[in-house]
Amino acid sequence: MFPYNLDHVAIAVDDLDDAIAAHRLQYKVEPLYREVVEEQGVEEAMIPLGGSFIQLVAPLGPDTAVGRFLEKKGPGLHHVAYAVADIDAALDHLRASGAELVDEAPRRGGRGARIAFVHPRSFSGTLVELVEVSE
Amino acid sequence: MFPYNLDHVAIAVDDLDDAIAAHRLQYKVEPLYREVVEEQGVEEAMIPLGGSFIQLVAPLGPDTAVGRFLEKKGPGLHHVAYAVADIDAALDHLRASGAELVDEAPRRGGRGARIAFVHPRSFSGTLVELVEVSE
Repeated sequence: MFPYNLDHVAIAVDDLDDAIAAHRLQYKVEPLYREVVEEQGVEEAMIPLGGSFIQLVAPLGPDTAVGRFLEKKGPGLHHVAYAVADIDAALDHLRASGAELVDEAPRRGGRGARIAFVHPRSFSGTLVELVEVSE
Repeated sequence: MFPYNLDHVAIAVDDLDDAIAAHRLQYKVEPLYREVVEEQGVEEAMIPLGGSFIQLVAPLGPDTAVGRFLEKKGPGLHHVAYAVADIDAALDHLRASGAELVDEAPRRGGRGARIAFVHPRSFSGTLVELVEVSE
């Protein structure tokens, strides 16, 4: 278990078009693609930056994880995602280390990746996503 | 003005040693270096991950920006930092774009870099740092 990259940093936003426009205006960056991920109740836009992405993530409705985050905390930094080569081994290692997992087994995320979330209680109040991107 | 890299993601923590130990145990990662940055009232540890860093940042005292953040919100994601080639041009561009700057002029950050912060109100509740790393 060793993350080999900072895959992305996610920013929860109310309106994806507005957030993309603001980033375009202020930083002259552009999403590489947008994707609705029904299983997670979000639409996300991935902005490439160096070897990582800024992920802008908007909820498909109020009764979703990101919808509840926005209701409670407002827009802002939501999670950080580490790329791992073997997500099953990573989850086993984290479990053995006493980490509290949100997802006991990987599920499907954007880009067809296998993903899993680790609870913020396990690391300094920070929601961590593991991503195993398939080729 | 175009950020060429996601320089780092900062996580505010109460205790730097504890946070480093947790990251070591859970993710088998290690800081490349630690640095006290008196001007910002913090000690920071930089963990390399792919082409970016995870920055663990602990306050030198309660009456610092990070100390107040921890008091108000608890530990967690604090800011995202974009690497730029010319921070003066970047600030000019942001000002012209209507962004609200925390720092009207660059100041000195870790690694001897010239840095400046952009207010969370300017982009989706997210505190953004610009970093011009000198060689």
